[in-house]
Amino acid sequence: MPYELHYWPTIQGRGEFVRLALEAAGAPYVDVAREEGGMPAMTHYLASPEVARPPFAPPFLVEGKLVLAQTAAILMYLGPRLGLVGRSEADAFWTHQVQLTIADFVAEVHDTHHPIAVSRYYEDQQAEAQARAADFRRNRLTKFMAWFEAVLERNPRNAGASLPHLVGGRLSYVDLSLFQVVDGLQYAFPKATRRVLKKAPLVAALHAGVGSHRRLRGYLGSERRIAFNQQGLFRRYPELDG
Amino acid sequence: MPYELHYWPTIQGRGEFVRLALEAAGAPYVDVAREEGGMPAMTHYLASPEVARPPFAPPFLVEGKLVLAQTAAILMYLGPRLGLVGRSEADAFWTHQVQLTIADFVAEVHDTHHPIAVSRYYEDQQAEAQARAADFRRNRLTKFMAWFEAVLERNPRNAGASLPHLVGGRLSYVDLSLFQVVDGLQYAFPKATRRVLKKAPLVAALHAGVGSHRRLRGYLGSERRIAFNQQGLFRRYPELDG
Repeated sequence: MPYELHYWPTIQGRGEFVRLALEAAGAPYVDVAREEGGMPAMTHYLASPEVARPPFAPPFLVEGKLVLAQTAAILMYLGPRLGLVGRSEADAFWTHQVQLTIADFVAEVHDTHHPIAVSRYYEDQQAEAQARAADFRRNRLTKFMAWFEAVLERNPRNAGASLPHLVGGRLSYVDLSLFQVVDGLQYAFPKATRRVLKKAPLVAALHAGVGSHRRLRGYLGSERRIAFNQQGLFRRYPELDG
Repeated sequence: MPYELHYWPTIQGRGEFVRLALEAAGAPYVDVAREEGGMPAMTHYLASPEVARPPFAPPFLVEGKLVLAQTAAILMYLGPRLGLVGRSEADAFWTHQVQLTIADFVAEVHDTHHPIAVSRYYEDQQAEAQARAADFRRNRLTKFMAWFEAVLERNPRNAGASLPHLVGGRLSYVDLSLFQVVDGLQYAFPKATRRVLKKAPLVAALHAGVGSHRRLRGYLGSERRIAFNQQGLFRRYPELDG
């Protein structure tokens, strides 16, 4: 039985973090809402009173009776099943902690273009977005990237390694997620990201290395990879970069 | 060995979700930064390059060699150890999923008073805060509370129960966290919360029931419970309520 991933069909968004894990592991899955008749299936889980444990929002994973939402929880669940996390409890929780920090960062990225209300257009909150994005570039982007860099520096298994990893000596789902974050930042904030990556060489090396992972390269070049666009988490508004 | 909780000593903030779990279970713990000499201990974990797996931010839990940050991850770790979560994997992940949704909600509560920059004073972003808070009250508060109410309605173990629970038939850490959220909302948005709770009677019943839990009542009446104030997540600015 393939995993069912339910997510908005036209954006990478938070669903992409799950897609990357499934793709890197070569796991069988159906991207439900992108299939014929898939949107009603997704809506059922979100809106039907018959669903005992309803997701608050996509993405969510369905496997048999399990319906599991929240990106970081899905990855924690999939990690051991896909061979994308260390086996000890300490590694599992540390990896999850890094993922949750990525989730916090991604929420801040989102709010650079929607600081006032997700229910309103960007154009209606553009001035506020410019103020928030300026603070994001100056304070938050630098702080988060410095933390990712420190995590990579302090991982003893990265000494002498050509491809650094966030946890232990091999690929885990947080490496995929940090790859995605850097990819998105390069799309949304090309100038600020170029600047910040100069001070985070291990993050840059991780991004390059993960992007050349055999299965992932196949995925990134396929039509399954939705292009970045102006509806997703990462959006390119030149006035928010600098 | 008592658990070590590291968190800012003068606010409830995110640390309070962990405190409530430790207190409700009667677990031995030290609230490190509130002890003599505790702030340098907390700072060590955040700032010293010797810490291999550094927290991005408080709260974090220290137990022997384990240093674990991210409120929801801490609660997932403590849940089985404190008897505050069901034993099956499905229950553990569902409970965690609810907690992560609470975390998302709490981040939105925070941003009502800091929509532009955490690094700047409320007074410097008050107009934007009023716009964000208006959207929060109208759209986000109602949406999240309707979801919590639906989760309580659909839990079959709540049929005929005087005290409803979010998961299964007994107290789990998410009940404590939802209690804290309602308590904070009543402080920060008394008018809007009164209105929304009328449509969420099970959430209101959970709040009342958890607040009368024997150990918790003792805690809430003690000096260990920091009062709500204008530095925490939940702040009372009358112009943001309505």
